[in-house]
Amino acid sequence: MSIVVVGSVAYDTIETAHGGVTEALGGSAAYFAIAARFFTPVSIVAVVGADFRPEDLQLLAERGIDVRGLELQEGKTMRWHGRYHEDMNRRDTISVELNVFENFAPTLLPDQCRCDYLFLGNIKPGLQARVLEQVTSPKVVGGDTMNIWIENAREELIKLFSRLDLLTLNDEEARQLSGEHNLVKAGRAILKMGPRTVLVKRGEYGVLQFSKEGMFAVPAYPLEDVVDPTGAGDAFAGGVMGFLARHSRLTESALRTAVVYGTVLGSFVVEKFGLQRLADLSFEEVDQRYRAFIELTDSHYSRWISQ
Amino acid sequence: MSIVVVGSVAYDTIETAHGGVTEALGGSAAYFAIAARFFTPVSIVAVVGADFRPEDLQLLAERGIDVRGLELQEGKTMRWHGRYHEDMNRRDTISVELNVFENFAPTLLPDQCRCDYLFLGNIKPGLQARVLEQVTSPKVVGGDTMNIWIENAREELIKLFSRLDLLTLNDEEARQLSGEHNLVKAGRAILKMGPRTVLVKRGEYGVLQFSKEGMFAVPAYPLEDVVDPTGAGDAFAGGVMGFLARHSRLTESALRTAVVYGTVLGSFVVEKFGLQRLADLSFEEVDQRYRAFIELTDSHYSRWISQ
Repeated sequence: MSIVVVGSVAYDTIETAHGGVTEALGGSAAYFAIAARFFTPVSIVAVVGADFRPEDLQLLAERGIDVRGLELQEGKTMRWHGRYHEDMNRRDTISVELNVFENFAPTLLPDQCRCDYLFLGNIKPGLQARVLEQVTSPKVVGGDTMNIWIENAREELIKLFSRLDLLTLNDEEARQLSGEHNLVKAGRAILKMGPRTVLVKRGEYGVLQFSKEGMFAVPAYPLEDVVDPTGAGDAFAGGVMGFLARHSRLTESALRTAVVYGTVLGSFVVEKFGLQRLADLSFEEVDQRYRAFIELTDSHYSRWISQ
Repeated sequence: MSIVVVGSVAYDTIETAHGGVTEALGGSAAYFAIAARFFTPVSIVAVVGADFRPEDLQLLAERGIDVRGLELQEGKTMRWHGRYHEDMNRRDTISVELNVFENFAPTLLPDQCRCDYLFLGNIKPGLQARVLEQVTSPKVVGGDTMNIWIENAREELIKLFSRLDLLTLNDEEARQLSGEHNLVKAGRAILKMGPRTVLVKRGEYGVLQFSKEGMFAVPAYPLEDVVDPTGAGDAFAGGVMGFLARHSRLTESALRTAVVYGTVLGSFVVEKFGLQRLADLSFEEVDQRYRAFIELTDSHYSRWISQ
């Protein structure tokens, strides 16, 4: 089944101790869509300015991403400028120019309104709700959020939670939202706020999944070189939703496999700046790393021993 | 098969934001021995002072730990005083009094010299070597170390590595020893220094195992309440060595199961102050949490899906 994703498409300027890129294609919807497209058709809902480069549109379209919902407005495409610390887990936002994204009022096309899988990328909770209202009867709804909305639009955000099958957020956001420092407590507290599944992203430490069925803990794929973490969380979400949409079910076992595929997609993103690596990637590579990951985390050999 | 462990037995004063204990039985050899004893007989080699409390000796002896090698000397038992930050991953050492431990010169009993499994707990590398020399033909040798020895006795330490089947150290020590910030690079670099297996302990983020066969990544057991992390790494090592000694083999699969059991033992330790929880623990609880851990980290459901 196909997915509709709403979120940002932006030009990112990224600095790390080892280099950087200037005004490279980025944004949560771009990372999400390319990752999810490995599994299933994806339709993107976002806004860009008159300066959006044709080659960037082509990059998305060439991968078979439906870009009819990429609204072109007068003005400039959103800009984000970030700088990572030596320790890649931390970054500072140097500047954000919302530009055309400031007045983004997403309107879905008629066929998008009938979608089964919907992902509400990290935008204002009010806009996420507005998108959700337009979809007739979605089977699975996922959503992401960030510190600004937890701080400034908490009520609207939580109101949305009972509609979410899947909420992704990072460890700091989980702590902020729940008021609990311990992530197990935080995850369980957020689960009680309404989402059917909560995925807490811990960067290089992996993911904790919380659902009624219990917890699932996965380490990150261990990498020798982390070049740029930007977009890894969005690609993770894309991998998770993509796998679920492809297999059309939301069982605990499908979720776990989806989370591993998401982890694998995220691990590729950080290997190069921006979405260069994701754009290069083949499904063979994804599947190969999925197998490597399973081997890397397999404590089941154990069963041979205990007998 | 039985294990001989050499290390410290100490009285620990521990402070955290949520309470503490004063002069509680601790030390690497004590945590290690109690954890390993769930799997196999353990013989302890350490030194205590005239103030060592009979009930502490009894606690070890009652668990079937062989305490003939617990040398009683005039003077005081070693003291350690530590304080944890709100974030339990960080602690400050307020004071250390080595006392009788300062001139510890471990001498094994004749039957200990014939042991098959030997664990060189965190003491001066020179002393670790001295113990190793006394053992006729050990089948499996494990060892632990810490920042002081990496800084002050680096050569002696590395000389020991080619004799180790198993080296345990924490993430910061791995970085310090290898000069690599990235843990995958660090683990691989240390593996080249000689140990057959390197276990990098990452506290609440789990363990990375490096061997010729490749890597194994395990998350920690997610806990709602972490009361006191003291001794978790030693109990981890005890669980690993205990399982290996019980099953008398050092295959990749045995190692992985051992690492999971070690993780489980470590997870119990942090639930109460000092070794209270470890001393209370039944093997049924260990086994139950082992099963829970396998379920919690099981991405193998996946196989049903892919087909």
